[in-house]
Amino acid sequence: MLMTGRLTLPTDIDMVDETIRLKNLLGADALRDCDGTAMPEELLTQSAKKYATYYTTRKDNDWANENPEEIQQEYLISDRVTARDTKLRIKLMKGFHTEQLKVNIIDDPKRWWEVVDRTTGEVVPVYKWEFDGETEEVVIESVKYHQYTVSFLAFLVWDPVHMYNFITNDWKDAPHQLTFDVRQPKTQIHVKEKLKRWCEENPHIDVVRFTTFFHQFTLTFDENKREKYVEWFGYSASVSPYILEQFERWAGYKFRPEFIVDQGYHNSLFRVPSKEFRDFIEFQQIEVSKLAKEMVDIVHEYGKEAMMFLGDHWIGTEPFGKYFQDIGLDAVVGSVGDGVTLRMISDIKGVKYTEGRLLPYFFPDVFCEGGDPIGEAQDNWLKARRAILRSPLDRIGYGGYLKLASKWPGFIDEIKYVVNEFRLIHENMQGTKAYVAPFKVAVLNCWGNLRRWMANQVHHAIWHREIYSYVGVIECLSGMPFDVEFITFDDIRNGIAEDIKVIINAGDAYTSFSGAENWIDPEVVTSLREFVDNGGGFIGVGEPTAYQFEGRYFQMSDVLGVDREMCFSLSTDKYNELDADHFILEDIEGNVDFGEGMSRIYAQGENYQILNKDGEYSRLVVNDYGKGHSVYFAGLPYSPQNCRILLRAIYYAAGMESEMKKFYVTNVDTEVTVFEKTGKAAVINNAKEAKHTELYIDGRLAYSLDLNPMEMRWVDCRK
Amino acid sequence: MLMTGRLTLPTDIDMVDETIRLKNLLGADALRDCDGTAMPEELLTQSAKKYATYYTTRKDNDWANENPEEIQQEYLISDRVTARDTKLRIKLMKGFHTEQLKVNIIDDPKRWWEVVDRTTGEVVPVYKWEFDGETEEVVIESVKYHQYTVSFLAFLVWDPVHMYNFITNDWKDAPHQLTFDVRQPKTQIHVKEKLKRWCEENPHIDVVRFTTFFHQFTLTFDENKREKYVEWFGYSASVSPYILEQFERWAGYKFRPEFIVDQGYHNSLFRVPSKEFRDFIEFQQIEVSKLAKEMVDIVHEYGKEAMMFLGDHWIGTEPFGKYFQDIGLDAVVGSVGDGVTLRMISDIKGVKYTEGRLLPYFFPDVFCEGGDPIGEAQDNWLKARRAILRSPLDRIGYGGYLKLASKWPGFIDEIKYVVNEFRLIHENMQGTKAYVAPFKVAVLNCWGNLRRWMANQVHHAIWHREIYSYVGVIECLSGMPFDVEFITFDDIRNGIAEDIKVIINAGDAYTSFSGAENWIDPEVVTSLREFVDNGGGFIGVGEPTAYQFEGRYFQMSDVLGVDREMCFSLSTDKYNELDADHFILEDIEGNVDFGEGMSRIYAQGENYQILNKDGEYSRLVVNDYGKGHSVYFAGLPYSPQNCRILLRAIYYAAGMESEMKKFYVTNVDTEVTVFEKTGKAAVINNAKEAKHTELYIDGRLAYSLDLNPMEMRWVDCRK
Repeated sequence: MLMTGRLTLPTDIDMVDETIRLKNLLGADALRDCDGTAMPEELLTQSAKKYATYYTTRKDNDWANENPEEIQQEYLISDRVTARDTKLRIKLMKGFHTEQLKVNIIDDPKRWWEVVDRTTGEVVPVYKWEFDGETEEVVIESVKYHQYTVSFLAFLVWDPVHMYNFITNDWKDAPHQLTFDVRQPKTQIHVKEKLKRWCEENPHIDVVRFTTFFHQFTLTFDENKREKYVEWFGYSASVSPYILEQFERWAGYKFRPEFIVDQGYHNSLFRVPSKEFRDFIEFQQIEVSKLAKEMVDIVHEYGKEAMMFLGDHWIGTEPFGKYFQDIGLDAVVGSVGDGVTLRMISDIKGVKYTEGRLLPYFFPDVFCEGGDPIGEAQDNWLKARRAILRSPLDRIGYGGYLKLASKWPGFIDEIKYVVNEFRLIHENMQGTKAYVAPFKVAVLNCWGNLRRWMANQVHHAIWHREIYSYVGVIECLSGMPFDVEFITFDDIRNGIAEDIKVIINAGDAYTSFSGAENWIDPEVVTSLREFVDNGGGFIGVGEPTAYQFEGRYFQMSDVLGVDREMCFSLSTDKYNELDADHFILEDIEGNVDFGEGMSRIYAQGENYQILNKDGEYSRLVVNDYGKGHSVYFAGLPYSPQNCRILLRAIYYAAGMESEMKKFYVTNVDTEVTVFEKTGKAAVINNAKEAKHTELYIDGRLAYSLDLNPMEMRWVDCRK
Repeated sequence: MLMTGRLTLPTDIDMVDETIRLKNLLGADALRDCDGTAMPEELLTQSAKKYATYYTTRKDNDWANENPEEIQQEYLISDRVTARDTKLRIKLMKGFHTEQLKVNIIDDPKRWWEVVDRTTGEVVPVYKWEFDGETEEVVIESVKYHQYTVSFLAFLVWDPVHMYNFITNDWKDAPHQLTFDVRQPKTQIHVKEKLKRWCEENPHIDVVRFTTFFHQFTLTFDENKREKYVEWFGYSASVSPYILEQFERWAGYKFRPEFIVDQGYHNSLFRVPSKEFRDFIEFQQIEVSKLAKEMVDIVHEYGKEAMMFLGDHWIGTEPFGKYFQDIGLDAVVGSVGDGVTLRMISDIKGVKYTEGRLLPYFFPDVFCEGGDPIGEAQDNWLKARRAILRSPLDRIGYGGYLKLASKWPGFIDEIKYVVNEFRLIHENMQGTKAYVAPFKVAVLNCWGNLRRWMANQVHHAIWHREIYSYVGVIECLSGMPFDVEFITFDDIRNGIAEDIKVIINAGDAYTSFSGAENWIDPEVVTSLREFVDNGGGFIGVGEPTAYQFEGRYFQMSDVLGVDREMCFSLSTDKYNELDADHFILEDIEGNVDFGEGMSRIYAQGENYQILNKDGEYSRLVVNDYGKGHSVYFAGLPYSPQNCRILLRAIYYAAGMESEMKKFYVTNVDTEVTVFEKTGKAAVINNAKEAKHTELYIDGRLAYSLDLNPMEMRWVDCRK
């Protein structure tokens, strides 16, 4: 078994000997600096790849100060203020931190700002308001008791990530790092020259790790230096009149601040994206990719590799966008919070390799009294491992302060265990693809593949009460034997691909993930009905297909066999009875966890079977529809048991129950991944307790296995 | 103390002596027959008023059979059927009971029916469908995978109430009672003549108790004789081409079946009523009142009183409608399920007296092993008593089989206790009005006074999980020291009445009780903002002012200080902290019961105070707005504690905290009602345990009282 390679370790200036010891012990083949650490000179000659973080948009305050008009900008929306009279003053910077943001008075407010009457939705004509530079207020001729907002541009005079690190680490004397906008003409030339110089000056660096390119996701602080708004997918800080004028030429219509501020929701991923916002994303991705390619080309000219960090300034370079592959990156690295975020990295096409930063980061918030870094590492690995078996990262690594990890009793052993299992997966898969069911599963929402593995996420692997019952669906899928597509409603309109056999729609009503007004488009519902009628499967979670219209809340209630009681049909009697005897629950013992569990779901029609109820209402319902089937879940948070339920639900929905036992393990806490070409099968125990499980191959019992806690057991699948 | 009067007892053919005994024991002054019982001849000479139930629309099958075209009709909507091809057959009577309803093929289907494409909302032109009389199917030229419904007329060949009683009591050989439509010309003459004859033949009857007039609320059965749909406020069974043609002339536009079937929601009270449905209600109330008056006039001609039962065939005679008083009734009688349903009766204007039928009915389902008729009577009286103290019924009574009650140990004593307390209230109030706060409280919804005390009700006092957290608000109000108005959004548009100081909006989003699209009417929100800004109070419960628009879900979020997280603002940080120290919770101990407790409520703005939280979200929030205040409740089911919380919330919202202790009892399980003119105050114990309480008068401690379980103690309030 290979004992070296595929591993990156962080280092620090005072860790030379310890780095070498751990490098040898763990078989690392790459070393990296981090935010707040530095690569010691002595290590530059080590036989390992050296990564260096590189920032294109900051750490050059002289440049920013000399070119204030090329500092990055962000579209802000003021507080909503209700007029109590016919004249209203709105203080622009109220609720923002003036150390982070500064009103842009260089560009004409009347051209770039917008005052909106939020009581009517109408734009207030520019002659009805004035900017008072003295007080930084906008003065509006208002209608009494109407509410108003001002959308305006501000300069990002403190880089949001630097500000975040500064506040979080309680730095005292570090100067605030200003931003500059690489898209602008002077800065563009300057930054390229600087990158060339840097490459020349750093001959021992093998990999330039861009963090990232040009535009930070939206991260705004309030007047108390607390996070005010953070949207990991947000484009609000990727704007400037320079860019927006280009956009207008490209799009052929006039830009409106509303395209960005979006009523104050800032185009949250949960909003159905407007045409104009989708246009803006497209435009930015084209332009950012083009310019990023130029940076990558420079790196290549110096014989180095270019690596992109997935996050921070990643706006415009999202890796499932249409233009990402044109950048020509060698690698992408990102943080692995769970299976879903792992697949955000490992599914990336068009790079030579992908690398995942496993958790925990070696930071004092975990490596401290009361902290449980080993437990965190185990939980992280359990989720990551199932996803890696389906779609492998090429490399893994860690981040933070190496000394914290090396001092924690047992932690290095834990890493060693993880790294060895990771290498073993690669050894046994030999670059081949794991067995998947003979059909594809598609997740349907307004974003599709552009936000692959990002459905119902607020921010990289952050738990929210509102989303975990939906994120569970894709977390389960991240380690399941299915090829998963993420498709849009246009993909439905253009004809459902032949190889898709099951379509999943999961989300809250009126969000981009449920689909909102798409569900009253006859083209969408008729296509999907025909798909199911002809044998397809449809799985709904939460408020699938929801839009109150013509007597139904779930527009596909005929397919789903359920609707939600919105008080309009309280007078209609429901005779909903439980019958839990079904393929989907065959090997499920005990209660099913529906998470938040959408309330008020009732079955209707004639072809349903209710598998789980909560009082008078239902939480798990199947329905026959022509030759096809549907399954409704009130919620599906991640758990090994729910993985199994979803596995069964998908095979059932596809009408392929008999295929399920081609490769199958009996214990719900275990899963099997099969590499038919190499003849190897991995049976993993997803529990922290020992488990007995039986492996079926081609429907017949092949192995009876006793697995240790968390064990991954490899067996010959040709037996 | 008066020991007789104000009481009606049921009797039966075999209960002559026992009726007389109980009449004397309880001091009853009226006797009645019931559905299924009869008045014995021997009692007709007793010194008591005799009531006789009278049915105008049934119990005359000969007439119905001779005049089939004048049988009552109902608008039905077929099942929603999805077309799998370009021809679709919809079986009209599928899901209905053919013993109850029969397709009307006398009137032209093409004129009176409607086929609707529910995938587009469009009406299918009449040339694209045909009725196949043979199979009772409508055959439609369909678009593949569109859904269709047929709205059609059917004859009510079995009276719904008779059918209900027949099924419930498992009658075997009683012939099904057909219906006839008193509005139609031949039947109208016939029914009037019959009433005259009946009056002549029943000289000993003093009170004709109409049950009720002409149109039954919607009550439809399915093919298994189970209740399919019941809408206590439904107009679906008040239609016929004869009536609808009159309506068209009156309204000046063409009638559409959709006005009645309403997408299959049948104009549930929770639907925002369309203009057309409101027109139809108005038209029916005009016409029904006119004709009902003619029936009442006949009764009066014979020297008898006319009493209306609130319910059953009450469509068009709802007592808070504009034309009800024109009928000239002497009395209304109705069932008292709780305080709210009591006030539906006791608040009626334009009759000489009101009578409430207390619970339980003397039926075998309660007077049986395991039944608790005494407990039910107590619970009923506790709720009724608080409401009577505010708005007294003139009489009370009971229904059912007297022998069941007389045999149940202790039950007659319980009744005696109730009746005596009831008489004592009248004795002490002497027809004067109880003290109320010096301002009015208004409940704002789409129905206003037309559905006074009916907000968020599905059916007379029936509990539903979806509504009890809202019904609690009006149940609390039914016994509180406030004059309560029920107002519509038009009442807001026309200018909020001077004497209203607090406005309550309680309901689920998009229902008639929350208000739906009214909340994006600038006239409504600006009026209400001005009202609060100038010192008014606004209380929201559940999803008040909800309508997703221009960046907010609660359109009055500035006034309320809260909004609901609909997933669009998950990226916005909320720093919501609890501070329970507030006037509203001053004498509240232990947990507050928010019932279903609307989820995902967060505070926003700058003037809020969070009084109760559930995890990161809030359940009770107050907000300052100019000179006014608002209070938000996630839900407010009825309980003595919640009555107290609402009392405090209302005084707080009105900015009149200091007024609260004009008359005040300290124990939350107790309440006080004061009759200033007679100098009497009733302190009631709403608990079934003994309670100590202190009575404050004009802010000073006046009495320290130890109350027995459920006791009502009268004291001199001039002390």
